[in-house]
Amino acid sequence: MNQDTIAAISTGMTNSGIGIVRISGSEALEIADRVYKGKETITEVPTHTIHYGHVMDGDETVDEVLVMVMRGPRTFTGEDTVEINCHGGTYVVSRVLETVLKAGARPAEPGEFTKRAFLNGKMDLSQAEAVIDVITSENEYALQSSISQLKGSVKNRIKEIREKIIYHTAFIETALDDPEHISVDGYGEVLKEAAEEVIDQLKELIDSSDDGRIMKEGIQTVILGKPNAGKSSLLNILAGHDRAIVTDIEGTTRDVLEEQIRLQGLTLNIIDTAGIRQTDDIVEKMGVDKAKEYAKEADLIIYVVDASRNLDENDEKIFDLIYDKRTVILLNKSDLDTVVTEEMIRERISQKGVQKQIPVIAISAKEEQGIKELENTVKAMFLKGDLSFNEEVYITNARQKNALVNARESMKKVIFSIDAGMPEDFYSIDLMDAYESLGNITGESIGEDLVNEIFSKFCMGK
Amino acid sequence: MNQDTIAAISTGMTNSGIGIVRISGSEALEIADRVYKGKETITEVPTHTIHYGHVMDGDETVDEVLVMVMRGPRTFTGEDTVEINCHGGTYVVSRVLETVLKAGARPAEPGEFTKRAFLNGKMDLSQAEAVIDVITSENEYALQSSISQLKGSVKNRIKEIREKIIYHTAFIETALDDPEHISVDGYGEVLKEAAEEVIDQLKELIDSSDDGRIMKEGIQTVILGKPNAGKSSLLNILAGHDRAIVTDIEGTTRDVLEEQIRLQGLTLNIIDTAGIRQTDDIVEKMGVDKAKEYAKEADLIIYVVDASRNLDENDEKIFDLIYDKRTVILLNKSDLDTVVTEEMIRERISQKGVQKQIPVIAISAKEEQGIKELENTVKAMFLKGDLSFNEEVYITNARQKNALVNARESMKKVIFSIDAGMPEDFYSIDLMDAYESLGNITGESIGEDLVNEIFSKFCMGK
Repeated sequence: MNQDTIAAISTGMTNSGIGIVRISGSEALEIADRVYKGKETITEVPTHTIHYGHVMDGDETVDEVLVMVMRGPRTFTGEDTVEINCHGGTYVVSRVLETVLKAGARPAEPGEFTKRAFLNGKMDLSQAEAVIDVITSENEYALQSSISQLKGSVKNRIKEIREKIIYHTAFIETALDDPEHISVDGYGEVLKEAAEEVIDQLKELIDSSDDGRIMKEGIQTVILGKPNAGKSSLLNILAGHDRAIVTDIEGTTRDVLEEQIRLQGLTLNIIDTAGIRQTDDIVEKMGVDKAKEYAKEADLIIYVVDASRNLDENDEKIFDLIYDKRTVILLNKSDLDTVVTEEMIRERISQKGVQKQIPVIAISAKEEQGIKELENTVKAMFLKGDLSFNEEVYITNARQKNALVNARESMKKVIFSIDAGMPEDFYSIDLMDAYESLGNITGESIGEDLVNEIFSKFCMGK
Repeated sequence: MNQDTIAAISTGMTNSGIGIVRISGSEALEIADRVYKGKETITEVPTHTIHYGHVMDGDETVDEVLVMVMRGPRTFTGEDTVEINCHGGTYVVSRVLETVLKAGARPAEPGEFTKRAFLNGKMDLSQAEAVIDVITSENEYALQSSISQLKGSVKNRIKEIREKIIYHTAFIETALDDPEHISVDGYGEVLKEAAEEVIDQLKELIDSSDDGRIMKEGIQTVILGKPNAGKSSLLNILAGHDRAIVTDIEGTTRDVLEEQIRLQGLTLNIIDTAGIRQTDDIVEKMGVDKAKEYAKEADLIIYVVDASRNLDENDEKIFDLIYDKRTVILLNKSDLDTVVTEEMIRERISQKGVQKQIPVIAISAKEEQGIKELENTVKAMFLKGDLSFNEEVYITNARQKNALVNARESMKKVIFSIDAGMPEDFYSIDLMDAYESLGNITGESIGEDLVNEIFSKFCMGK
């Protein structure tokens, strides 16, 4: 509570109904009093109350406002906090901030409110990181996993694993200090079992990061097919289902347009590719090569087959691309006389020696048939039913994943040492390394520089 | 208080720290309770208090929030109001709104909260219009005049004038009803005097609308001068003084760039023009003609004289343009050997028969000398000293100005009738017309259609 008092605009900088200037720190209430003119004195009102009045810059009325007064520690930052709700014009909200700064507050750095929340013990680092994830969430699953993390799911899971590690470390240390009373005979086996359990738990978290990334950033999806198979029609239909929230994102190269589509709470980043066929045209060939490249990096391939034309050597080439990928095959043009059947597709797939079950769906892009089945299939492929975020923990943060990988490496070394019959004090070092790595996630063993770097990525006013 | 309950996002739709979903209406607290999970029950908490908790969509946590509970009539709309402060991501704030709508609120129309404030008697129409003016204010004077109007300056002035009119109307009506006890002999003179006083007051308000427009929209400024007189350098310096808030606004035609500059609380919309000279080049001639056109419509002309070269026939042409305009003449290049003096300029002006005092300032755009004097001069030309908005009333709204003009017309008819010796009941009609016209400003005599039209111009969430 000895920190200086900071202030910033916490709402978006476009003209709107309401804007908020947030003040936090030991002098927040005094500073608010200096700019507030109303019936009450801010320093004297009860906590968590709202007061109508005006912000004054000397004799000049800057705006008509509602002032929210919240005394620490029951606040976001843990410090005394005042939020001035003013009119949401960009000029007027800037003037309110200016007046507050003139009255003694210091401009907050990006993320400084959340940083204080972390430093004041209101949340651990995984929760602080979840704050920015909640704000940048673009779909339901991203929001749900961030909210779950904000509520402490990652923190609690990490805490649990760390407690297990520290228990065994403590036991070994104690035994080594007091060999007369505590024996470590046969403890290697016990520890090995525990270490394997920890490794399994870490693996589960690390594996969740793939799903976590998909939730947060969306499913990288590539539509493949021969020319005129109906790829672009499909894209239009998928986009059109929810046109209001379709955004056009220009790709890194001009010839690729990526469409972002929300599908039942998931985000699909769909890349429409050039039709794949044998060609001597150099430009077209480059397009086809690019399509193949995208296919390699995709999370999902949607392979559109023109069911009204026989499969040919071009389709053959596409079958080669879909082996080790999550794939949906669409038999398009079900509205026409079709010559390609699901059986024929399945035969081709088995000829290629592919074991996994690839869904094959008959659709008509033209008549918008089968689209719902496609959506449900995609959802089922990426999410095991409806997610219950109360139990599952998803790692969506690269920094956290990295720390988990490091911790797993240390735990593997523990097992190696046990198997190699090394003395007990040897593997307590690796145990502590794993413990420290996990502490990076919750922020319990982390340097000031890293803390600053993490919070500098935040938006202003949070 | 019988209206249905409305909800909207009241903060700007860019990712930011905090977003607000506002709910207003008789069921606001009940609806908030349906989505809120926390320690308290919203319908039971005291008014003007803040509560921490979560917004839930069924079993799913949508966001961690602070809920502001304010019971009517001590609220903006006069109705029960709940403001949910959530994280400011565009997706999450939309999800919070969606959850609130699902719980029974109806999406608010643009301006509907303010419309309710007006309909519930929390503010008159001039104050309601001031709300949107506060939000769209781009400079200090626009903000100050809007805030003053929001606090009731226009309302009070109009009320005062209307009371005067209704007093005389009532007197005449009473006298006509009861001629035995009340005489209207000689009342024509009394009324004429009162009508002239009202006309003066209306004129003052109508005249203020020029300054009002300038405050709100900025001073239309044109820089004139011969080629290479230093026009663009001047523009760069003025812009550079406060570069952070310079915006480039593309003109209606591509060849005109309008720079918006904030200067001591005023906004200058500066148009940089082609240098004015005799030319046979058709394209250049078009540019010069355009400069002349802009000069005709300008609020302010800044005429940059190259003091290092003799005045010539091109300057002569510019002198012809600045007659009836507020003008500042700059003797630029004061860092060089100058051949044009202030006396020479004054002589030219008086030769043209111009009576008014035109400020002449020596500057060096190159060395940034004299710029402060220019700024102070411009400010003094447009604003009589520092504005005290406690006393002066500025009309910044075209609709209000129009109503004032109509009222003045009616009052002139009253005087005409008195002068023409018409019977008393004749001019009470015109008095009532004036009364009604002024009532349009405060909204006391205004149709539902017009009310809807006025509020439809508002932004969402206000």
